[in-house]
Amino acid sequence: MTTVAARVDEKRLWTRHVDMAKIGATPAGGVNRFAFTPEDTEARKLLLTWAEKRDFKSEIDDLGNIFIRRAGTDKNAPPVVSGSHSDTQPKGGRFDGIYGVLAAFEVLEALEDGGIKTKRPLEAVIWSAEEGGSRFPMGCLGSQAYADPKKAVTLLDGKDNAGMTVKAAIAEMMKGLPKLGHRPLNTPLAYCIEAHIEQGPILEETKNTIGVVTAIHGQRWFKVEVIGEAGHAGNTPERLRKDAVTDAIPVMAALRKLFHDPDDVVRFTMGRVDVEPNATAVIPAKVTFTIDFRHPDEATITRLGDQVEAVAKGAASKCEVKVTQLRRAKTTPFTGAVPETILAVTKKLGYPHMHIPSGAGHDARYIADICPTGMIFIPCWKGISHNETEDATAGDLAAGTRVLAETMVELANR
Amino acid sequence: MTTVAARVDEKRLWTRHVDMAKIGATPAGGVNRFAFTPEDTEARKLLLTWAEKRDFKSEIDDLGNIFIRRAGTDKNAPPVVSGSHSDTQPKGGRFDGIYGVLAAFEVLEALEDGGIKTKRPLEAVIWSAEEGGSRFPMGCLGSQAYADPKKAVTLLDGKDNAGMTVKAAIAEMMKGLPKLGHRPLNTPLAYCIEAHIEQGPILEETKNTIGVVTAIHGQRWFKVEVIGEAGHAGNTPERLRKDAVTDAIPVMAALRKLFHDPDDVVRFTMGRVDVEPNATAVIPAKVTFTIDFRHPDEATITRLGDQVEAVAKGAASKCEVKVTQLRRAKTTPFTGAVPETILAVTKKLGYPHMHIPSGAGHDARYIADICPTGMIFIPCWKGISHNETEDATAGDLAAGTRVLAETMVELANR
Repeated sequence: MTTVAARVDEKRLWTRHVDMAKIGATPAGGVNRFAFTPEDTEARKLLLTWAEKRDFKSEIDDLGNIFIRRAGTDKNAPPVVSGSHSDTQPKGGRFDGIYGVLAAFEVLEALEDGGIKTKRPLEAVIWSAEEGGSRFPMGCLGSQAYADPKKAVTLLDGKDNAGMTVKAAIAEMMKGLPKLGHRPLNTPLAYCIEAHIEQGPILEETKNTIGVVTAIHGQRWFKVEVIGEAGHAGNTPERLRKDAVTDAIPVMAALRKLFHDPDDVVRFTMGRVDVEPNATAVIPAKVTFTIDFRHPDEATITRLGDQVEAVAKGAASKCEVKVTQLRRAKTTPFTGAVPETILAVTKKLGYPHMHIPSGAGHDARYIADICPTGMIFIPCWKGISHNETEDATAGDLAAGTRVLAETMVELANR
Repeated sequence: MTTVAARVDEKRLWTRHVDMAKIGATPAGGVNRFAFTPEDTEARKLLLTWAEKRDFKSEIDDLGNIFIRRAGTDKNAPPVVSGSHSDTQPKGGRFDGIYGVLAAFEVLEALEDGGIKTKRPLEAVIWSAEEGGSRFPMGCLGSQAYADPKKAVTLLDGKDNAGMTVKAAIAEMMKGLPKLGHRPLNTPLAYCIEAHIEQGPILEETKNTIGVVTAIHGQRWFKVEVIGEAGHAGNTPERLRKDAVTDAIPVMAALRKLFHDPDDVVRFTMGRVDVEPNATAVIPAKVTFTIDFRHPDEATITRLGDQVEAVAKGAASKCEVKVTQLRRAKTTPFTGAVPETILAVTKKLGYPHMHIPSGAGHDARYIADICPTGMIFIPCWKGISHNETEDATAGDLAAGTRVLAETMVELANR
């Protein structure tokens, strides 16, 4: 164990996770902490309280991204940042996102404990509202706007399911936070590293502790609307019905078939289904469902995604079908200094490791546009995530944090 | 035109409908007025205001059923009652339910205008919370409890989707209503007639103005739960998924096939679909959907309904399937004095008419258990109901009310 890695305190890191998991805790042992809600605000406040005890200075930007800074010896050098998100899916787990935040904060504390100085400042970051399709339709709001401030206006105008804008939600959150310094979006960063649970089964299956992430897979999101006509369930004959659920069944079945992949590389999910008016005795007037489709290969993403509209329309018999693409993200490769340093450090520390791609999107995808970026994965139980039973071991959390600590220090002293 | 029928004021009746439709009006021209909500309370209050102007006395029972009484010459005689409901489906129309209430009230006003006395008292009734599967899972709460007070405790303990009990919802409504006399449930009634739009296309197709209702069809409601496991949409391979939407598709398709009827007599609707956690990037952990199934023939109801569980379970591949029957209602025939009088009066007034069954359930189904009961149907546009575009003509509304007026007077003087 190196001097830096040895300072990472496994027990403190675990306790921090336990404390954070209390905020928005669900009865089934998970976490429901939507972006900018009182729960998210409380989680951020707790982290700021810990930062204050260490005399770290904290800044916040227009998207609510929070930066906790441990000063470097070179005051003008851009920081090495690490972090992830504090929000969760509706029935999320105790590690997705918050692990990356707490690991980065643990690095700052470990260096403080050891009196270890770095040239560049180090920062632990909370990127706002990462979980798309939960409170807000889009995800990674904070990292997107930070990397590309031109997007900020549009992103701040986005609305949650209750019609509240991102801007208003942030203003609401700010009321519950202490006063922080203001950081302009796009303030230069030297390097960015994000630690995260894998959210897949590969590291566990292969008995590896560290995944050096090679890329984030491209993805497309679609909204499919099947539009029929409401009517009384008791009196309307079949021949006169335009039942949106009846038509949605073959539409969904045809899409399922289109995306079936014997090699099991395609990731295809119809995660959200909303029926109107959604009452037992009323013929459904409309079904709206989402498609989340991911694949490592751009050509496959184009080929399959471009068939969604025709296949969906061809499968309906009585209802109108509308298809809207909600997002399209290209594959983001992680190459250069950051993944190279992660790999070297992992080898030095002796952890079993592998290269691994990410099917999940992460804030690192966007920050990669403005500075050299990489990701560290650690295993999670059965690969289960976005689920209240999500789990990870204290040992793996600490291992990832040790790799992160060494990587940050190495990059900060370049 | 008879003396009684001539007093029915088509214009007043139409204006009353227009006024009522403002309460809970939706932008698309429909009505959203869930039982016991501020909107439902306001609708009831408006009717009570009109009643007060006529010096009619009003009573309310423990289920919130409201009875507006025009006295008869025999003060001890049980009343002839007529009415329907003031609540609607989430995106309901301007006539379903409220027509039966306003028609009955118009009869009381018409007789008052004409100074026409009856032996028995006449009452216009609002039966509470008729629309099942909207605010509350069960429907016809008011008429069920009135006919069978033993059910009242269970019905009052029922909860809406937000967890509020029927009892609490009624208490909330009572705060917004003037003080009324209390009527015990099950107070004897002489006869009951319910006027209603057909909510089907038959009268319009056959160019009949009046439908003399022969029966309400039997029905069964089921809840089907498809239980899988949540997971991350980006990282979880197909082989490790238990995707509840993926499994719900063949389950729903198999049920659709089971209930397919070339003769188009079966009424089969999967009206409500709820997905958990219902987020774009999360593999669905659970799909819950409802079945509403109706048929005139008891044997068919038993035969098809009893296959639901096996067919649903047989169609799923990875998920667990649970089937719960939510309700079962037998076919209710309308025979004897009430339909006979409706038929005789309709003939006397010269309206084109036919005998017609009802696939829809109505409060009359339950009141038929405690007194001779019948129903009058009038046409509605294209048969569309439980839909914001629901429509009916002022002339047809008045025709049904004229038949109702003659029928009530005839039965009141027996």
